[in-house]
Amino acid sequence: MAKGASISGFPEWLPEQRMVEQKIIDTVKRVFELHGFIGIETCAVETGASLLKKGETSKEIYLLSRLQEVRHESDIPISERLGLHFDLTVPLSRYVVEHSGQLTFPFKRWQIQKVWRGERPQGGRFREFYQADIDVVGNNNLPEHYEVELPLVMCEALDELHRFGLSKATVHVNNRKLSEGFYRAIGLTDIEGVLREVDKLDKIGPDEVKKLLTEDHGANEKQTEACLRLADIVTTDPNNLRSRFDALCDSYGVDHTSEGYTLAQQGLNTICTIIQQSAHIRPGAVIADCKIARGLDYYTGSVYETFIDGAPELGSICSGGRYDNLVSKGNRKYPGVGLSIGLSRLLSYLLGTVGAKASRQSPASVLVAVWNESTRDTSNRIASRLRSRGICADVAPQANKIGKQIKYASKLGIPYVWFPADSDNETGSDVAVDSVKNIVTGEQSPADSVSWLPDTVYAQQTIVINKE
Amino acid sequence: MAKGASISGFPEWLPEQRMVEQKIIDTVKRVFELHGFIGIETCAVETGASLLKKGETSKEIYLLSRLQEVRHESDIPISERLGLHFDLTVPLSRYVVEHSGQLTFPFKRWQIQKVWRGERPQGGRFREFYQADIDVVGNNNLPEHYEVELPLVMCEALDELHRFGLSKATVHVNNRKLSEGFYRAIGLTDIEGVLREVDKLDKIGPDEVKKLLTEDHGANEKQTEACLRLADIVTTDPNNLRSRFDALCDSYGVDHTSEGYTLAQQGLNTICTIIQQSAHIRPGAVIADCKIARGLDYYTGSVYETFIDGAPELGSICSGGRYDNLVSKGNRKYPGVGLSIGLSRLLSYLLGTVGAKASRQSPASVLVAVWNESTRDTSNRIASRLRSRGICADVAPQANKIGKQIKYASKLGIPYVWFPADSDNETGSDVAVDSVKNIVTGEQSPADSVSWLPDTVYAQQTIVINKE
Repeated sequence: MAKGASISGFPEWLPEQRMVEQKIIDTVKRVFELHGFIGIETCAVETGASLLKKGETSKEIYLLSRLQEVRHESDIPISERLGLHFDLTVPLSRYVVEHSGQLTFPFKRWQIQKVWRGERPQGGRFREFYQADIDVVGNNNLPEHYEVELPLVMCEALDELHRFGLSKATVHVNNRKLSEGFYRAIGLTDIEGVLREVDKLDKIGPDEVKKLLTEDHGANEKQTEACLRLADIVTTDPNNLRSRFDALCDSYGVDHTSEGYTLAQQGLNTICTIIQQSAHIRPGAVIADCKIARGLDYYTGSVYETFIDGAPELGSICSGGRYDNLVSKGNRKYPGVGLSIGLSRLLSYLLGTVGAKASRQSPASVLVAVWNESTRDTSNRIASRLRSRGICADVAPQANKIGKQIKYASKLGIPYVWFPADSDNETGSDVAVDSVKNIVTGEQSPADSVSWLPDTVYAQQTIVINKE
Repeated sequence: MAKGASISGFPEWLPEQRMVEQKIIDTVKRVFELHGFIGIETCAVETGASLLKKGETSKEIYLLSRLQEVRHESDIPISERLGLHFDLTVPLSRYVVEHSGQLTFPFKRWQIQKVWRGERPQGGRFREFYQADIDVVGNNNLPEHYEVELPLVMCEALDELHRFGLSKATVHVNNRKLSEGFYRAIGLTDIEGVLREVDKLDKIGPDEVKKLLTEDHGANEKQTEACLRLADIVTTDPNNLRSRFDALCDSYGVDHTSEGYTLAQQGLNTICTIIQQSAHIRPGAVIADCKIARGLDYYTGSVYETFIDGAPELGSICSGGRYDNLVSKGNRKYPGVGLSIGLSRLLSYLLGTVGAKASRQSPASVLVAVWNESTRDTSNRIASRLRSRGICADVAPQANKIGKQIKYASKLGIPYVWFPADSDNETGSDVAVDSVKNIVTGEQSPADSVSWLPDTVYAQQTIVINKE
């Protein structure tokens, strides 16, 4: 993070860091569009009523008040106040319902925007950050193949970030029906509660989870053990998954005709389809992992988390799932499946741990020198000609000594300095034609602003990995 | 605006409208970078103390409170609360001061972000909108040539929007020193007050302004008339400007040795430099207009407003000026000059009055058809090959009848439908090789996914002007 950022939890980047963020956004957006996802942007606010659907007042939300409302703001019911969105799924739901008549379904949309969490200020937690989401929302039905394809699009997007120093991403998939079905089959009833605790496995470890399941969710020791054994199943092989699940069921005496078992089998079938077809399309990208639970209660089918090789500290940087009941309008349902990349956290990792940064601070490839203020016009014209051919060009801020102008270029990382022909012989030297100097290599040669091109390697700002 | 947008003042666009916004952003950003401006992004919030500098509690600001703070939020002093930024200049000031050690000066930055105004909800006023800003900030000094160049960069950016249907932009320039010097020279003292009223000329007309000047700012009839006569001067000719100004001064008996006259002359010199040099670099782009006042009190030199030919209802869509005292740290000052495009208002005009929209809703050029779900894999592979060559490709959502698949493409504006070779002869027809159909022209021909390219005209989403 840019040092000295004064507002805790609101990250702000230096120019050479912001460039990495911009390139990441451009890169994932490009992958989304290659797959036919349509970009939308929703406003930053939602009503308190939408943000707090289902009465989740524990949510970390920022509410707004107009300056003129101060002192009376608490009089307005929270449901009628505006608040900043905390994710891009709630806004998507509203957008789809509002514009359903003007959208084509299934609606494949990408959305990359900042979201806000009104958390207590604490070290390392972002209160403002970017999310990059893709979702497909159907009109009353949504084919299962999107549950196979969406995580693969995300893998492709993350793989494109290899050149910014990101290691391989693997999507871990589970299915709510499998978990819920199994929990019911072994006699548990507080399904949401159990899922919430299992979701903490990586953070607090099995012993703590056991304790919570027993103390807060009425699980006996056998049930607790069963939950943890289910969570232990990780495999890329559908047959292995089926046989281990059935073995687990048998060892706990699960009745194969029970509703729970039937539900679990539906989930199991979907997971098997996903890992089987993924292996086909993008080998090694997706793995079944029965401990994936996801805290959010609106998921009804597949749930995904994504981990980066060699970066366990990063946690899941791309999560999501299928939600059949989140969006509805009258009798009509809009089932969806989507995943969201936590871009700011990913950026923070790439800038910090990986050491990614822009190859230079300025987009300019060339700084046109100015012999003296009366010939600034000549320098401006040269810059104009270069720009008209797509070459980013800056002009020296002042007609200082040439050494000082070169230093300005060097500080900004601008690789070339352009010397206009000095027809007035201002410099005492005999400079009859323009010339350009690569201040990295020291090479200098005559140049014409209507035809000169920078060497490819110096033409654009790029990302470099600068591990210290 | 997308119909039915539920939150008043927070515009939201349909996909084919959002695309226009995205293209506008990309276009102006490109121009900024060609000129060597460096992109930054600041967080959405500032402290109440920064937002309300100089105690302007009349500002239309949104303050934030965490959900947990509701009922106690008004106990926190406003200066310590967080609020959403209402422009990009206040955040820039803070950014420059915080990171001055890591920036290269003069610091040329572009910034395109949303800003928020906590206005009373009322028809047509945006409470959330995009601004596109460029500023150059110097370290203790800032050469005058930036006051010539920045409005020209904005003209270039706006001219690039011609292809989205925008007419020619003209920057109107004035100088605070000219106005202030003249007002002082004729004996007025409430300079900020007078500027604020003169700024309303276009909105409320000369009679109302006269009334306000007389009633609220202690101007007599002669002074009021002088203010309006100064505001009448509009010219592209420096000599004309000088002679009209001097004639005006003479007719009001202004003493040429007075401090006011001297200050006015400084301003006049700057305006003359600007219109003279602009005429050279970009003829017809900049005009001197002595009624330009700008409401904001931090401007100290040049002030700019920009109008679009044939769109007076739009008002100024790109404004700014020079500010010498806005940013400081200890004894060090950071004088700046900058302009800001009101992007959302411009977009709203282009979508509404001009009728700009995306040529199609989907970024995809091709929809790959699916004969039946068991061969979806084949269709996916074709799409993959197209994407690997940069062609945006979608795959039919369901293996419906081909007519229904074509209809899906057509609704999304996808111009090509790809028919995989039907080796299983599913269709009863003998389709031995892939073929692709342009559903706009009806043309169909055999195609190979490793080499086929869409016709240029159908390759990308573009902007079309669709005046109804």
